[in-house]
Amino acid sequence: MADDRFHVYDTTLRDGAQQEGLTLTVADKLAVARQLDGLGVGFIEGGWPGANPKDTEFFRRAQTELDLKHAQLAAFGATRRAGVKAADDPLVAALRESGAPVVTLVAKSHDRHVELALRTTLQENLAMIRDTVSHLRAGGQRVFLDAEHFFDGYKSNPAYALEVLRTAAEAGADVIALCDTNGGMLPDELADIVHAAAQTSARVGIHCHDDTGCAVANTLAAVKAGATHVQGCANGYGERSGNANLFTVVANLQLKRGFDLVPQESLADMTRIAHAITEVTNVTPNSHAPYVGTSAFAHKGGLHASAIKVDPNLYQHIDPAQVGNDMRMLVSDMAGRASVELKGRELGYELTPEATKTLVGRVKDLESKGFTFEAADASFELLLRDTVHGERTRHFEVESWRVIVERAKGGELVSEATVKLHAKGERIVATGEGNGPVNALDRAVRLALEKLYPELARLELIDYKVRILEGTHGTDAITRVLITSSDDTAEWSTVGVAENIIDASWQALEQAVTYGLLRAGHEAG
Amino acid sequence: MADDRFHVYDTTLRDGAQQEGLTLTVADKLAVARQLDGLGVGFIEGGWPGANPKDTEFFRRAQTELDLKHAQLAAFGATRRAGVKAADDPLVAALRESGAPVVTLVAKSHDRHVELALRTTLQENLAMIRDTVSHLRAGGQRVFLDAEHFFDGYKSNPAYALEVLRTAAEAGADVIALCDTNGGMLPDELADIVHAAAQTSARVGIHCHDDTGCAVANTLAAVKAGATHVQGCANGYGERSGNANLFTVVANLQLKRGFDLVPQESLADMTRIAHAITEVTNVTPNSHAPYVGTSAFAHKGGLHASAIKVDPNLYQHIDPAQVGNDMRMLVSDMAGRASVELKGRELGYELTPEATKTLVGRVKDLESKGFTFEAADASFELLLRDTVHGERTRHFEVESWRVIVERAKGGELVSEATVKLHAKGERIVATGEGNGPVNALDRAVRLALEKLYPELARLELIDYKVRILEGTHGTDAITRVLITSSDDTAEWSTVGVAENIIDASWQALEQAVTYGLLRAGHEAG
Repeated sequence: MADDRFHVYDTTLRDGAQQEGLTLTVADKLAVARQLDGLGVGFIEGGWPGANPKDTEFFRRAQTELDLKHAQLAAFGATRRAGVKAADDPLVAALRESGAPVVTLVAKSHDRHVELALRTTLQENLAMIRDTVSHLRAGGQRVFLDAEHFFDGYKSNPAYALEVLRTAAEAGADVIALCDTNGGMLPDELADIVHAAAQTSARVGIHCHDDTGCAVANTLAAVKAGATHVQGCANGYGERSGNANLFTVVANLQLKRGFDLVPQESLADMTRIAHAITEVTNVTPNSHAPYVGTSAFAHKGGLHASAIKVDPNLYQHIDPAQVGNDMRMLVSDMAGRASVELKGRELGYELTPEATKTLVGRVKDLESKGFTFEAADASFELLLRDTVHGERTRHFEVESWRVIVERAKGGELVSEATVKLHAKGERIVATGEGNGPVNALDRAVRLALEKLYPELARLELIDYKVRILEGTHGTDAITRVLITSSDDTAEWSTVGVAENIIDASWQALEQAVTYGLLRAGHEAG
Repeated sequence: MADDRFHVYDTTLRDGAQQEGLTLTVADKLAVARQLDGLGVGFIEGGWPGANPKDTEFFRRAQTELDLKHAQLAAFGATRRAGVKAADDPLVAALRESGAPVVTLVAKSHDRHVELALRTTLQENLAMIRDTVSHLRAGGQRVFLDAEHFFDGYKSNPAYALEVLRTAAEAGADVIALCDTNGGMLPDELADIVHAAAQTSARVGIHCHDDTGCAVANTLAAVKAGATHVQGCANGYGERSGNANLFTVVANLQLKRGFDLVPQESLADMTRIAHAITEVTNVTPNSHAPYVGTSAFAHKGGLHASAIKVDPNLYQHIDPAQVGNDMRMLVSDMAGRASVELKGRELGYELTPEATKTLVGRVKDLESKGFTFEAADASFELLLRDTVHGERTRHFEVESWRVIVERAKGGELVSEATVKLHAKGERIVATGEGNGPVNALDRAVRLALEKLYPELARLELIDYKVRILEGTHGTDAITRVLITSSDDTAEWSTVGVAENIIDASWQALEQAVTYGLLRAGHEAG
């Protein structure tokens, strides 16, 4: 468990999920939580159990399916309704029963919001906070309070805003996170208000939004003014302009202000984690993101090239390896070699310098066409084998394939695929039906090859992802397909890229089957 | 011409163009300059004449083709080479002859950079600054100095960094812009150094990069510490993580700090200008950009929606009209009646309570099946119309459709779609080919209907997104397709959800065409 003196609190799964176009399934949430735990954050806010069936299920499944090494789960919820006992409020009960060791309660701290949005009295709002905090504390949970609209509230009625803090702290809340809910604050004024809040008996935290482009700076200013708990979201996800980017906040504090927030080796994994999360959220990664963006340490060669050779640190603010990123020279670049070599070693191949060079060239070429190997280990291994063996790994030759998807007159939908393959000297024609074109193709291939390779019966296509990559000026969009397959003992992913989505799917499928056959001990030939 | 007491200085055309993947033609640069002038910036840095033929041409064409109302052009260049007279340096001559009223000279202010990158002595570097500034001033141009690596330089050798400022100011430079060239500064330390620099006789400016996610906050901190000249780029373009976003800086200073930087009516055009520039640069607009992003004032939370009806200002940090943006309500599973009602009003429908209730029920039901309406306004409007009118909006009936994707024996890939439709009493059969199954279906539908509805020729499918949603355990995955269409005056998005990706695409396509026909004035029949 993390040191309690300073909290790194992630709210991607709750506040980050408010981002336009971002929708997370329960499985997505579990996957993101594992990545965040891998980074070493202290707290992961999982959602609002009771208010949202998906979040209730997340907390239920988390108890058996998440094995967190660093982080504790926090359940988010509101204080009890006006005029009800905390013990009688079913939403409070859902927090109690979530199994989360921490509950983060949102409460109003802006007088006008209490009156206009909550439609109750200032006194009743304080009672709601007091009762709900003590009730949950009595049940053994740790309680944090999100003081909503705190900064606007302080400007409207400072005495009341501070009274909210004191009330929550006295009732047993460990941290009061001051929320710039509308995101309109600038660092100087925000720091003054945090300083005032930190003078109360309460331990204060900070929760910022990026509506002025200052979410990260506001968070740092709050820390300097006394906050010891920072909230943010992976990749800066969140409503409107997003929440404070937790990755940027952590890197700034740890690398530039000497805080010891996450293990050094986890920080060195931050770039990979940031990208892995974008694969789950299916949000296009921001190549310009500080620290973790693919462009974050990219230099247009030109004038500075020779000076960078003398001393790269003259031209970069940190060593990119500290966050797992790489310096890239956009004209003559040497990047990638080391990671390709390492990856090869990880897969059990000792690559010669020439093979490494060839492989780096092929990876770069394919990546420029839209391929990605970060999430497609099996495709990378096939490419590596092809490079080492000098020819393409294949157990079968494809003569042709065809997919038909038809909605008939009666409304019935049929997907049918036919493949014509050559394997072990035989020509095989097989037709499969499925609930969609890729499923039909998958069945047709398996049907064609199962007699020759019975192990294929164990192979299963378990995930299929599609991303449309924007074309460069004047060209058509490109489709990237990632397929994950399993054979009960392992999972592997393959990638295909083409203008045509069916063609891209076919490429990934062909590799998935090839890799499955290699795993089953069949050398190609 | 702008007030000289405070400078808004844009460097999109020079430093912004260092962004990976951003390439501007001379015509592009002229177009961007016109937009920036429309915003009312004081200075537009056009490039480096003499070093780059494209930039030389830009300055030549600017003299006849640009009719700037607010801004003055600045030519960027370096101080004279070591050991040469300024008058004899051809690059200095190119600046003199650029026709630009302002020259911005970049100079080293970091002792190690002078020695390692420039390979000259600290004294010669000062002489290069002195000579070049006085030479250009004597020719009648105004001179600004970009003090490169100033902050790292100050930390390395404060006396020398300040000596650079004094030398430039004494030679006649009007402004010394302190550059955080590597972008590694945080606001507190940066402000201290700006403060020290402002104590010299020089007028100081600020030039920040976003490598710590603090470029905007650093710029504001510098202004507070005494800088009276801010540099930045449109949309935060720039190398690595980008430069300070000039739009965010201007909006923050003008709307939150009382500066009078650009005309109020130009500020109210900022969102349009930001998007117009992305059209020229062909860089996908950042929907989360502060102030000008399409998501910047979009609200999703159901909690907020009911209160927004009471008072929208409770939930937004400024009135979006001040920057030419709009509040948007996103219809999502976190929202309820209030947001549906508001969304209806936004679309021009006054819904009865019963219609609202029915519509909320249908939205919730469809969302539980995987639909999403927050990014599919047109699908939502069709659903709303169906609810109000009590029947489905349709201009045509579908009898059947069929898609074939085939890779033939020779490797040739063919996508072909056939649709059978009934419209205006006719039965129409049409077949289209495309670069993929959806493109083929799109062409077939248009071919079928174009004779009856010639307006369809203007309709274009401009974006296509696919998301695979995980099914609950044991069921198949669900595919969600979002299609964006346009007819030259507007864009609209539609959504389809099905197990089968082609079926989901068809649903979105059918709605896209229906909505396009409604826009063209055809009521369904």
